[in-house]
Amino acid sequence: MSQEMYFEDFYPGQKFNSLRSYRVTAKEIISFGEKYDPQPIHIDEAAGKNSFFSGLAASGWLTAAIVMRLRVESINVKGGMIGAGVEEIRWTHPVRPEDKLRTESEILDVRRSVNRPGFGVVRSRTTVFNQRDDIVMKSIVNWLAPLRNA
Amino acid sequence: MSQEMYFEDFYPGQKFNSLRSYRVTAKEIISFGEKYDPQPIHIDEAAGKNSFFSGLAASGWLTAAIVMRLRVESINVKGGMIGAGVEEIRWTHPVRPEDKLRTESEILDVRRSVNRPGFGVVRSRTTVFNQRDDIVMKSIVNWLAPLRNA
Repeated sequence: MSQEMYFEDFYPGQKFNSLRSYRVTAKEIISFGEKYDPQPIHIDEAAGKNSFFSGLAASGWLTAAIVMRLRVESINVKGGMIGAGVEEIRWTHPVRPEDKLRTESEILDVRRSVNRPGFGVVRSRTTVFNQRDDIVMKSIVNWLAPLRNA
Repeated sequence: MSQEMYFEDFYPGQKFNSLRSYRVTAKEIISFGEKYDPQPIHIDEAAGKNSFFSGLAASGWLTAAIVMRLRVESINVKGGMIGAGVEEIRWTHPVRPEDKLRTESEILDVRRSVNRPGFGVVRSRTTVFNQRDDIVMKSIVNWLAPLRNA
């Protein structure tokens, strides 16, 4: 894990790649789907075959959760990465069993927080690729980072 | 479960409430955190006490997943609710162990899909409340719904 980062350590154009690929199994797709997104396309291989996605596909919310995992592993914010909101998520390609996902994140903007003295807001874009370099998800999210000398 | 809905069944101003409250347990917060958001504030009651949130709090992505669950239960789109993107998520209040979450969704706009003949795009706002009626999350999401006579 990299060293703990404060607000002052982030700057526009800075890039963070995931430290590894995340292998998505059919078991995890179905388990997540049964808990949080119980639709045939996410929980039933046979039903999925006749669906919009032509086969079992991960809930977009599972993909978003995996992206959080990869982001937390690769960006070590002092005190934890506190979400300050999502500006956009687009799911651009189905995530299938045995896909291997990786992320590339870029810092877009940094600004002091108006509402939270002692914190800044870091705005970032994350692009999520599978093992064939298809883009499966894009997002723009903001998080808080503490000022070094707050 | 209500009957299956097509694009033509949705209209701006239409409202859908969750059919129940979803009880969030410490076990689920920690289990989700360990898998997808392994930060002390989401996985360790003791560490959480000294954190930004002053106590164990759910990952925002767990809250988002629970909201998907409640939405799928209360809005029955023919063929499944296919996400067409998120425009906004804001986490406005921590979600704690034993919170009971419910959702109120409102359709904001409906339009034919340019890229997907046979489908329309339904734009919706969802507000998520805990048992004290604190707003814990707000989101604007789009999903696809098939045309009745595609």
